[in-house]
Amino acid sequence: MKMKKKHIRFPKRLNFNNGKVEMSHGSGGRAMSQLIEELFQDAFTNSYLRKNNDQAVLPVDKGKIAFTTDSFVINPLFFPGGNIGSLAVHGTINDLSMSGAEPLYLSAGFILEEGFPFSDLKKIIDSMAKTAENAGVKIVTGDTKVVHRGQADGLYINTTGIGVIPNNINISAERALPGDAILISGPIGDHGIAVMAEREGLSYSTSLVSDAASLNGLVKSMVEAVEDIHVMRDLTRGGLAAAMNEISTTAGVGMLIEESAIPVRPEVLAACEIFGYDPLNVANEGKLMAICPSETSEILLEAMTNHPLGVQSSIIGKVIEDEHSFVEMKTQLGGRRLVDWISGVQLPRIC
Amino acid sequence: MKMKKKHIRFPKRLNFNNGKVEMSHGSGGRAMSQLIEELFQDAFTNSYLRKNNDQAVLPVDKGKIAFTTDSFVINPLFFPGGNIGSLAVHGTINDLSMSGAEPLYLSAGFILEEGFPFSDLKKIIDSMAKTAENAGVKIVTGDTKVVHRGQADGLYINTTGIGVIPNNINISAERALPGDAILISGPIGDHGIAVMAEREGLSYSTSLVSDAASLNGLVKSMVEAVEDIHVMRDLTRGGLAAAMNEISTTAGVGMLIEESAIPVRPEVLAACEIFGYDPLNVANEGKLMAICPSETSEILLEAMTNHPLGVQSSIIGKVIEDEHSFVEMKTQLGGRRLVDWISGVQLPRIC
Repeated sequence: MKMKKKHIRFPKRLNFNNGKVEMSHGSGGRAMSQLIEELFQDAFTNSYLRKNNDQAVLPVDKGKIAFTTDSFVINPLFFPGGNIGSLAVHGTINDLSMSGAEPLYLSAGFILEEGFPFSDLKKIIDSMAKTAENAGVKIVTGDTKVVHRGQADGLYINTTGIGVIPNNINISAERALPGDAILISGPIGDHGIAVMAEREGLSYSTSLVSDAASLNGLVKSMVEAVEDIHVMRDLTRGGLAAAMNEISTTAGVGMLIEESAIPVRPEVLAACEIFGYDPLNVANEGKLMAICPSETSEILLEAMTNHPLGVQSSIIGKVIEDEHSFVEMKTQLGGRRLVDWISGVQLPRIC
Repeated sequence: MKMKKKHIRFPKRLNFNNGKVEMSHGSGGRAMSQLIEELFQDAFTNSYLRKNNDQAVLPVDKGKIAFTTDSFVINPLFFPGGNIGSLAVHGTINDLSMSGAEPLYLSAGFILEEGFPFSDLKKIIDSMAKTAENAGVKIVTGDTKVVHRGQADGLYINTTGIGVIPNNINISAERALPGDAILISGPIGDHGIAVMAEREGLSYSTSLVSDAASLNGLVKSMVEAVEDIHVMRDLTRGGLAAAMNEISTTAGVGMLIEESAIPVRPEVLAACEIFGYDPLNVANEGKLMAICPSETSEILLEAMTNHPLGVQSSIIGKVIEDEHSFVEMKTQLGGRRLVDWISGVQLPRIC
């Protein structure tokens, strides 16, 4: 959910005279796309940014490096399955991994609110260190700022990462082709619902845990199993729906998926019914989607299900020709519906 | 002012049970050093981080890259000579440049407060784009988060940068050697005092302008002029005093400088007298110090003064042997005094 989108039309342009930032501008939906397109992409125009991926692929000497940044403002700071620190490491590792890069180095920037307890800060930092070590990644540079009480909500963390992309790998959103298969690596919505339940103090919060995980190991198995993966994307803010719409608009294709093929845990479904959420819009922090030629999709699926983080992987549909870049879903009741971006605000501060 | 310091002793260790973040932990002084040493360096331990520079120098394929991160929380957002956006670009370009790297790519991460006016956001973004273009650097990836009213102060920006270091260049804090000359690139304290004056609404704010500038062009002239610059450092949070103390403790040397050789503008001196500041502690955003063998110091000085951003450069002293890593200054009155780190909070949110 970075600087993306270019083919999307918005009914009204942003008002740079009297308009204001709204919560929806951070929600991973249309409003954020519009802000990115009409402000950031317009200002920082260059061919790397225009690729519309979650990371830039940059030529350096004779190789290619991947480069990605993410700020974390999650509330609450501690949730079932992790905290803002582990999430900040997982999230940036995953954004690098989605280019097929081997993640190598992270930076960490902290904005601390005056009065924030050191005990919590230590837990968060230790968790970052352990998460990075487990993923084989080094945190090599950092920065610390402190603001007065009431000028931040505890702490915010930025992690920015560098990875190296093997020369034979070229994974990028614009490579989605009609006929390609679409795969996901497991059940969706766990992170968003676990965080929401913790935030609201709901009793079922004990049973559900965020799926936050570093996906570089899974991705390694995948790129070793098949020769040509066209696209990969982790299913963070805005969920599976946002990822599919981003790729469709970037590649100028459509998608057709099967609801029955998408795994969702019963407790996630139940929570979504209570809150009126669509699991397709709910954030994940340890799930990815992949798009590859249909001929190799079964081999890729096998590689994914053989990895501990992809046991419940499935093929959920295919890329189709569509000049409107729509994503459509065959529902379990036999109908078809459009899978749209999230509109407005659903779950603020989920990452 | 990143993750640094290792030889410094503190009377009491941080209390990770009941201690809290204080404003001084972000001030560039001893308190920040202690937080970095006892928490961040301890947790994220690796040889790159332990180098104690403002950027990591990383092996990638056959070359070396520089990698640095900085979060910007400056208040006010707009000040004479720039705004948070131009500052965020200058600052990270400068941190890369101090390793002798050619800065190439930046990421930009935004934390926006709900209600922040788009008109201001647009000014800031346009200013970032123009600053990057003028410096020959590309902003290639980004991220946007929005938090509720009262959870940020307008906006915070993280910029993280990548540069490539030519193979023959090795500039690093631990290379300061007794006998080396110490140079600075011009008058000190302009940024801190300009921002302070704007924040306090003081009348003389019109006459003084921040020195914020991208130093990559100046650095290029310098590395082309002499074969071996040992250390470079930009004089940001904590000012010249912090930079000298950081280098001294990292290299295990002392320094002896001459007050009369350090240029300070009369209006900066006047403001420092009013507020009780020491210009040596005040932040700059377009000034650097360099340490090189004394034999080549005059050639380096000439290269610096020939560049528009180094016209008032001077040789201010030399590196000496000192087991305590003290920095001492011969005053204009003929005495000597210790130049210490800033203690406590002087100018919060100056960058």
